Amino acid sequence: MNRKVIILKVGGAVVEDPVALARLIQEFAAIEGAKVLVHGGGRSATAMATRLGIETRMVDGRRITDDEMLRVVTMVYGGLVNKTIVAQLQAAGVNAMGLTGADADIIRSHIRTPRSWGWVGDVDSADGDRLATLIREGIVPVIAPLTHDGQGHILNTNADTMAQTVACALAPQFQVSLRYHFEKRGVLCNPDDPESLIPRITEADFGRLQAEGIVSGGMLPKLQNAFEAIRQGVSEVKIGETSITA
Amino acid sequence: MNRKVIILKVGGAVVEDPVALARLIQEFAAIEGAKVLVHGGGRSATAMATRLGIETRMVDGRRITDDEMLRVVTMVYGGLVNKTIVAQLQAAGVNAMGLTGADADIIRSHIRTPRSWGWVGDVDSADGDRLATLIREGIVPVIAPLTHDGQGHILNTNADTMAQTVACALAPQFQVSLRYHFEKRGVLCNPDDPESLIPRITEADFGRLQAEGIVSGGMLPKLQNAFEAIRQGVSEVKIGETSITA
Repeated sequence: MNRKVIILKVGGAVVEDPVALARLIQEFAAIEGAKVLVHGGGRSATAMATRLGIETRMVDGRRITDDEMLRVVTMVYGGLVNKTIVAQLQAAGVNAMGLTGADADIIRSHIRTPRSWGWVGDVDSADGDRLATLIREGIVPVIAPLTHDGQGHILNTNADTMAQTVACALAPQFQVSLRYHFEKRGVLCNPDDPESLIPRITEADFGRLQAEGIVSGGMLPKLQNAFEAIRQGVSEVKIGETSITA
Repeated sequence: MNRKVIILKVGGAVVEDPVALARLIQEFAAIEGAKVLVHGGGRSATAMATRLGIETRMVDGRRITDDEMLRVVTMVYGGLVNKTIVAQLQAAGVNAMGLTGADADIIRSHIRTPRSWGWVGDVDSADGDRLATLIREGIVPVIAPLTHDGQGHILNTNADTMAQTVACALAPQFQVSLRYHFEKRGVLCNPDDPESLIPRITEADFGRLQAEGIVSGGMLPKLQNAFEAIRQGVSEVKIGETSITA
């Protein structure tokens, strides 16, 4: 039986509210055994861009990343958000190490086409052996949503996809639990009714829920990511507000 | 005979000029064997602070680091400068990994007294075993001038001192060459005459040069750092523009 590892993805809202961040740190620190944190930071990037007089343009919920915006996300995700989390985890007794995909070449990507997205990367692969070595040495990787193309460019990259890629890359060596933490309780039959939580979804269920239009919008790519992870050997995927400790 | 490792400290001017940076990347990539890069970034931090309407205050050449300035240096040193260097080194075939002192707890410090400096750290120790393990795995640490206090705070830290601390921490396991790269040729008898280079300085020479007032100003702490490193087992210290390849 392989050792267990938990990959926790946390979104912008958790990272950018000091009270929520402090709770995340405590809950994440309390998880026993091997773990990886993947974080977002979009709201901080938007706030910093505004202070710098740089316009934020989003298409389909994704950030257009021109030269100026790339500098902002590199600073905010790789520096401010990542190192703030790392220092606080260290204080909570977790031997955190902040990483982008460029660091030790852990996650490669290529620039998205059409190029109109700017410096946005679609993930090619993660170095599961390197990550596994760090984890076995007792290190807890804290991964910012930035990758590189191997040609000297940092690329802005979707944190959900990075979490899934890391989970899949570790699946041959660990029993992997991938957890998408966010504000809602999980996948809801009726987005306005938190009591309509669907406690468990198999791939067959997903096809049916999709056909019936019950699952739609931003939840669709999350669930597609989730089932792709399962197909690639990840043991389980949890989605929702209780994903950290459950 | 221990394996050799080169610790190269580069200052702000090299990092912030794209042409100089490209040359640094090529020269650093050409160094064979184990190596570590420690970088500054003060000019970029000052430029970003100015864009954000934050005043830069320096006392004795050191930056007063209030809450706002700490956010700036965390972003600029740990994110923008560090990840730009890492991505470019990766493209040059160097397996660079960006680190601050907080990452994997590699360099601890305590807040400087009097507190009027703000979030400035004086280094306590570096984890030589952790750094040696990374180096033996083929990783090239790229270290930003930030440390942490173990209580959740990032601290702005002098890059020269960090390079010396890393060199000393690695000295029990490697034959360490510490190199301070900067614009001038090295230690000059007459600062205005580049031909007055002193090719070699022993500790006895240093006492004499100091007494005669030949070495003064910003060169004094650099040389004090250098001789402290030698006393702690570092094999050699080089100072000057040819320090990378010499």
